[in-house]
Amino acid sequence: MNNSEAEARLSHHRLTIDNIDAALVFMLAERFRCTHEIGLLKAHYALPAVDKKREERQRVRLKQLAADAALDQVFLERLMAVIIDEVVDRHLAIAADFRASSR
Amino acid sequence: MNNSEAEARLSHHRLTIDNIDAALVFMLAERFRCTHEIGLLKAHYALPAVDKKREERQRVRLKQLAADAALDQVFLERLMAVIIDEVVDRHLAIAADFRASSR
Repeated sequence: MNNSEAEARLSHHRLTIDNIDAALVFMLAERFRCTHEIGLLKAHYALPAVDKKREERQRVRLKQLAADAALDQVFLERLMAVIIDEVVDRHLAIAADFRASSR
Repeated sequence: MNNSEAEARLSHHRLTIDNIDAALVFMLAERFRCTHEIGLLKAHYALPAVDKKREERQRVRLKQLAADAALDQVFLERLMAVIIDEVVDRHLAIAADFRASSR
């Protein structure tokens, strides 16, 4: 394979990455739509903000999924922490809005 | 809706999240399989490690995708930075391995 063919292979792989990124964006958008509903439920029904048993089950499950997919587990934990921190921030905001509107 | 019904709704949403997380894990695994191939190509054919034009095109595209999906753009940029940092680290490791084996 010469350099020009290598560049063509590179372009081919980049198109795959663009498709995967679009899938990731829409999956993440749907995940936040779902966690938004959870935030509303927790605020309106005074359900516990954090469920340690649920978190531990998720952690074990993601570890197994990472192994099944041959995805680096430490990397996945770092990425999921970014997502979950965002979810927690939004849940706190929903709860604050709910308290403010209930006064 | 009483608290027991709210708990049932919560469980329903959590199953959706679990399904989405599995999809995210396998999408990410495929993305890294793809960037691994790119790392090998770049190392073997001495292609530039960074392509600023490609990066800018990706940034603009992701911004548009975030808008289309109603996903927070600042959050998406933060998440993509974690992914891209990992890709860069792995590409550097591939390039170092290639140089070591070419000596």
